[in-house]
Amino acid sequence: MIKDRRFISEPWAVHETELDIDHLGQTESIFALSNGHIGWRANLDEGEPHAISGCYLNGVYEDVPLPTAETAYGYPEAGQAIVNVTDGKIVRLLVDDEPFDVRYGNLSAHERTLDFKTGLLTRTAEWESPTHRTIKLRSTRMVSLAHRALAAILYEVEPVDGSADVVLQSELVANEPVVGKDGSDPRSGNTIDRPLEHELAVHTPRGAVLVHTTRHSKLRVAAAMEHLISGPRGVETSSESEEDKATVTVTARLKAGQRLRLVKFVAYGWSSLRSVPALRAQVEAALASAVEHGWAGLVKAQRSYLDDFWARADVEVEGDDEVQQGIRFGMFHVLQAAARAEQRAIPAKGLTGPGYDGHTFWDAETFVLPLLTYTAPQTVADALRWRYSILDRARDRALDLGLEGAAFPWRTIRGEECSGYWPASTAAFHINADVADAVLRYVTATGDRAFERAIGAELLIETARLWASLGHFDRGGEFRIDGVTGPDEYSAVMDNNLYTNLMAQRNLTAAAYAATHHKSVARRLKVSRKEIEKWRRAAARVYVPYDPELKVHKQASQFTDHERWDFERTKPEQYPLFLHFPYFDLYRKQVVKQADLVLAMHLRGDAFTAEEKARNFAYYEELTVRDSSLSSCTQSVMAAEVGHLQLAHDYLAEAARMDLEDLEHNVRDGVHMGSLAGAWLAAVHGLGGMRHHADLLAFNPRLPPNIKKLTFRVNFLDRLVRVEVGRERVTYTLLRGRQLSFDHHGERLVLKPRVPAIRAIPEIEEGPEPRQPAGRKPARRGRSQPRALRPATSSPRSRRLPSASRPPSRRRPSTRSAARASERRRRGPSPPSARAG
Amino acid sequence: MIKDRRFISEPWAVHETELDIDHLGQTESIFALSNGHIGWRANLDEGEPHAISGCYLNGVYEDVPLPTAETAYGYPEAGQAIVNVTDGKIVRLLVDDEPFDVRYGNLSAHERTLDFKTGLLTRTAEWESPTHRTIKLRSTRMVSLAHRALAAILYEVEPVDGSADVVLQSELVANEPVVGKDGSDPRSGNTIDRPLEHELAVHTPRGAVLVHTTRHSKLRVAAAMEHLISGPRGVETSSESEEDKATVTVTARLKAGQRLRLVKFVAYGWSSLRSVPALRAQVEAALASAVEHGWAGLVKAQRSYLDDFWARADVEVEGDDEVQQGIRFGMFHVLQAAARAEQRAIPAKGLTGPGYDGHTFWDAETFVLPLLTYTAPQTVADALRWRYSILDRARDRALDLGLEGAAFPWRTIRGEECSGYWPASTAAFHINADVADAVLRYVTATGDRAFERAIGAELLIETARLWASLGHFDRGGEFRIDGVTGPDEYSAVMDNNLYTNLMAQRNLTAAAYAATHHKSVARRLKVSRKEIEKWRRAAARVYVPYDPELKVHKQASQFTDHERWDFERTKPEQYPLFLHFPYFDLYRKQVVKQADLVLAMHLRGDAFTAEEKARNFAYYEELTVRDSSLSSCTQSVMAAEVGHLQLAHDYLAEAARMDLEDLEHNVRDGVHMGSLAGAWLAAVHGLGGMRHHADLLAFNPRLPPNIKKLTFRVNFLDRLVRVEVGRERVTYTLLRGRQLSFDHHGERLVLKPRVPAIRAIPEIEEGPEPRQPAGRKPARRGRSQPRALRPATSSPRSRRLPSASRPPSRRRPSTRSAARASERRRRGPSPPSARAG
Repeated sequence: MIKDRRFISEPWAVHETELDIDHLGQTESIFALSNGHIGWRANLDEGEPHAISGCYLNGVYEDVPLPTAETAYGYPEAGQAIVNVTDGKIVRLLVDDEPFDVRYGNLSAHERTLDFKTGLLTRTAEWESPTHRTIKLRSTRMVSLAHRALAAILYEVEPVDGSADVVLQSELVANEPVVGKDGSDPRSGNTIDRPLEHELAVHTPRGAVLVHTTRHSKLRVAAAMEHLISGPRGVETSSESEEDKATVTVTARLKAGQRLRLVKFVAYGWSSLRSVPALRAQVEAALASAVEHGWAGLVKAQRSYLDDFWARADVEVEGDDEVQQGIRFGMFHVLQAAARAEQRAIPAKGLTGPGYDGHTFWDAETFVLPLLTYTAPQTVADALRWRYSILDRARDRALDLGLEGAAFPWRTIRGEECSGYWPASTAAFHINADVADAVLRYVTATGDRAFERAIGAELLIETARLWASLGHFDRGGEFRIDGVTGPDEYSAVMDNNLYTNLMAQRNLTAAAYAATHHKSVARRLKVSRKEIEKWRRAAARVYVPYDPELKVHKQASQFTDHERWDFERTKPEQYPLFLHFPYFDLYRKQVVKQADLVLAMHLRGDAFTAEEKARNFAYYEELTVRDSSLSSCTQSVMAAEVGHLQLAHDYLAEAARMDLEDLEHNVRDGVHMGSLAGAWLAAVHGLGGMRHHADLLAFNPRLPPNIKKLTFRVNFLDRLVRVEVGRERVTYTLLRGRQLSFDHHGERLVLKPRVPAIRAIPEIEEGPEPRQPAGRKPARRGRSQPRALRPATSSPRSRRLPSASRPPSRRRPSTRSAARASERRRRGPSPPSARAG
Repeated sequence: MIKDRRFISEPWAVHETELDIDHLGQTESIFALSNGHIGWRANLDEGEPHAISGCYLNGVYEDVPLPTAETAYGYPEAGQAIVNVTDGKIVRLLVDDEPFDVRYGNLSAHERTLDFKTGLLTRTAEWESPTHRTIKLRSTRMVSLAHRALAAILYEVEPVDGSADVVLQSELVANEPVVGKDGSDPRSGNTIDRPLEHELAVHTPRGAVLVHTTRHSKLRVAAAMEHLISGPRGVETSSESEEDKATVTVTARLKAGQRLRLVKFVAYGWSSLRSVPALRAQVEAALASAVEHGWAGLVKAQRSYLDDFWARADVEVEGDDEVQQGIRFGMFHVLQAAARAEQRAIPAKGLTGPGYDGHTFWDAETFVLPLLTYTAPQTVADALRWRYSILDRARDRALDLGLEGAAFPWRTIRGEECSGYWPASTAAFHINADVADAVLRYVTATGDRAFERAIGAELLIETARLWASLGHFDRGGEFRIDGVTGPDEYSAVMDNNLYTNLMAQRNLTAAAYAATHHKSVARRLKVSRKEIEKWRRAAARVYVPYDPELKVHKQASQFTDHERWDFERTKPEQYPLFLHFPYFDLYRKQVVKQADLVLAMHLRGDAFTAEEKARNFAYYEELTVRDSSLSSCTQSVMAAEVGHLQLAHDYLAEAARMDLEDLEHNVRDGVHMGSLAGAWLAAVHGLGGMRHHADLLAFNPRLPPNIKKLTFRVNFLDRLVRVEVGRERVTYTLLRGRQLSFDHHGERLVLKPRVPAIRAIPEIEEGPEPRQPAGRKPARRGRSQPRALRPATSSPRSRRLPSASRPPSRRRPSTRSAARASERRRRGPSPPSARAG
């Protein structure tokens, strides 16, 4: 976990007050900048020390082997891994011939701030060199949201206590040496040694271009830089280039207080088709545009882009500043990952690190796209156009597997299945229903009929075909889908995973609708009336596993017959379980890695009664260990729905702080887009109670004891709605667009422009507090924030709590060992008993 | 498939009448010699051409990587693969400076015979060299069953049509070059390039010693040779040695009709502990003993060893010569694999090839040891002592997996789990019950109480502990074993595999008995009364999955709910299915690779009624595709029991001919010990109806229409019983030992010395003929043998058959393509309709 004192909980920023070299990897990810096309990890300007140096271009990968000890039919033959492309971040500094390196000399101050409003990463440092010259340093970095191909750095240095000879070396570096990675954790990615082959290196007086090609995948990558330099008289500049490196060198003699200022513009481009000259021209043009806009112009455009975003998307939380910060942090990173992805995949870690090899998974459609659908819908259309672009590969895969329609890859960069373990990939067919659900959600939230006709209908039809061929009607006429893996990765290859069956049901119904309403598409795809009939029949008769004895739904046919995991005998250090127990044992017992049936109750809430939801939630809560970052958000959503509002708050906080506090211990490999988006889901779908089934929007908001107010914005069918949730009532305001009708706690409401609607929040019976597996209770959120961060504020309600019941676990331990500290937090002291919400 | 005309169906030999270079790999395995310690593939004396050159020592392996694209807890870190050790088979011949190579010159005759009575492989050839000198050649090869460390070759050459300068180069060669292997078939093994590191090379006038160590596993291997030479005057001999080669060269000038005779003795030894001088001394001593015995002495000892074996073990079949040959071929190879294994494992392919990396699997205990238990019981004690020797590793593995007791490896050489695919290995826990069953069978068949006390009880107890920790009592109090894989590899990770549950039940009961009867063992292993009580309770309440609607037992809880495999749409060339369909699809459908529930009915016949057996057999027969060599034998056994005697004969023939006709297309990698033993099981347990549950021996013999007589011998509690089964009656004769009681078709019979008992065979109602999946019906055995091989004989019964119903498929196609031919046979023309037996 990341130390308390280093991160100040600010509402609009992440602010690091000192440099912790032991946690460089984590901050490299947390402070990473991206626009969805370019990704720069927050490596120090001078390049070293670093945990993982990373510059990424969305879609640039290298082929990697997928070895198997025992091969079998249908195994993918090769994998793909994201490549660390030419590094344009590096600005080295020498002070009187001493290289600025935080490991030498004396670093008396070092602060970094990632600002969600400006989209800038600022670093300030004061450093006394080994030869006792003190300098002040300030660098400001951006990856432009407005200009897709551009990144830029403003680098300023000034001697404090006397004159100094200052040299800046601004570089482009290809094939940076790879430092050791942890081979034992399957979640971290491949590292490829020297992936780039030189093609071109040229330099101009203040700039350079390098062009390389990836060795096996043959993708051409161009990186270029240009500089603006200002300083006292006598500043000199030179440049040079070689195969894997280009340098612009600036030398100056600075007196105390004099400042040398370097603006570095970096442009990137890549293509599998375009030639070296074409690609070179492309990056040079981008640089020319950058020079024209200047640093100030880029900064202004960045701010403007973000102002727009926050105006239509912001979520405000009163009563828990850490949650406030976490939600905005998540939204900022999700925006960064998606903004300019433009028909490329959104990887699970965005472009913030090499984790999961840079692959995209189902969480893009199921966690990331919901946030974007209601806040930046054009990015969703682009993400789904990427899915559409790989549809032929998905059709081929289905054919290989003996199925019909399309089988999207579990993990991929370019569209080919890249998983080496089929029970948790090929068998996880639900990804296809997840894609269909994202299509349906986007189309019904935007009314984008052109997209539906050109892209959406085909995606719905081809995924429905998959289900029709994957399932079968049993002797009783019910439609069963056997031998598949649901979201919970501690179960695999089960019959009738309830999540999968219900999502397939929606997919089949939607495809039948699409095929009848887009006849030209249906004709082109040779959809027969009989086929549509079969989809409807399968949807109508889909098997829903239920245990009448326990009166709960079953995660899969076999699930409730299995032995319960022995949570009492599992030691805290044995989490996550998959690093300490074999899969065979996890699969055969009742233990849930991440919300599965509970996720079905969120996404297919229309398929359950309120009573079923409450009973199911309680049953699965006792089995869910949250060894995935994709769990607490969903648990928060459903805890809120069934009335466990304090628990919803606890899980919301866990989701919102997942990466900031490195709860999964792998933030060094990149931040988790799914879980970052999950914080938004927990706030807006959880406490905000927003649901969107078919064409109907609904809000069932309700606050936990320690959150005073929640305000969020939702874009729906060209309207912008602001929802302000207070303790007893909600105010709905139409900020843009014509009148809109939706449900408030089951009551139909017609919201008109300029007429806010105020509604009371009905009471809910909380019921007995659900139990979690031993030691897996989430940290209880108290009524006040840590004193160190802000003055204690407390609501009248929370003041009624006796002080003895204030949970002592609020202050997190300060040990440097991330693993041990986090485990302790998880075990934690017992929180006070439950209260009605 | 191997061509008809090349193999003459002899009752006591395999006789090849011409050399087919395209099938060298298959004959290298079929003619391989072994004594269980040393294995020599039947490579040509001159070394080339060959498919796979192989000399093996039981237990000599090299570490190999077990790569995984996505690693997880509990995966084995390294594998083991059998090593091609120093080759002592090579005797090169030069005639007037022309090397004898069957690919050059003119090979006018070439025959090979493997004789099951003498244990010798004889080769005769007549060859005209490219320079037109014709020679006759005769080599006779043995791996001594009497002398564990010894192999020998008698090599004779004589010019036919004039004088010739003849040179013999007799060699020891280490690190033979590896030729390409088929990487797409997971059943073939690893090939390791240059596995041996040189340690010693010395030579004497007519001999040499080479000592090497395996590179990573550090096993020291010594090979030595010594020669006796006779010929006309003027024969000269020289010798030399270098790192990886030693040669004794013999030169002679031979006139037409003069013969040069070379006897080559080869001795092997290996150790992980003993020094180079110690190992050298060991092989030199073995050679000294060989020289003293001489060639004739070794031949005599070989014959004597085999006479003993056949006297107590032979199976005689009248009416199907191919089956007769196949059964004896199988018994001979099984004996070769086990005879002198002496506390090493019996690999799935014996020491006949590198297939399956030289690993041993469950089929050793379940198929090979039953044959040996009643024919060569001392080899069974040794094989189980090997299991006992790896018990500590099995305990460690159980611990790693979070289980109690011992978890034996699915595949191994030295005891460590070497499987790279856990759903079909780690999850196949039944191997532990198979070991326990082998212990129980051996102890009750031999009454070897000393073994039971020293070895057996501990094996029973530790495996029972595994089951007790692997299973659980469900809400209804039944004992369930979830998420395991049974024998059928087209299902995996299922709940309550019926075979596993019933075998575990027997294991638990046997352990409870052993722990109460061997109190000192129980004390040493800290077995508590409560533990024994739990074993008994688990055994009493073991869950037996049954489908009341279909009135059949379920292979596993989920099985009968699954979709049936679409056999009608599966093309003949898509078998074996696992090479053409993904596992996920096979696992989720009703399709059976190999007998699983049917095997349970064989081994746990005491747990089913006759009616259940008949119904179950018919149900699973429709689903079983026999993509494993371990299926037809079991189907034969159960077909016979439920009264489908013609089908039993068909399956018996398939089992007996499996390797001789290369029905699985991988005999080149070695013969299949399990399936070879299966032919014996099909004859003795199938047609002979022998069963042995608990202490009770029973025979329920019954012949199919086209077999006139079956005679077999069974060793049981120090008695030797001969069973002669005729069409209407059976004669039981006690050949050795005191009186013995057993059941004949349910009637208790007390057999006394010198008083044969003759009993009638009761009629059985056959019922409707079971159907097999489309195109998977076994070839129907007709009433007569191919005319080319022997004069047609026909019984009075078979004469009644109209000639039109004689199946046209008797004569197999003669195409050279093994795969195509076999497929055609499988598809085959439809056989005549079923007849009552």
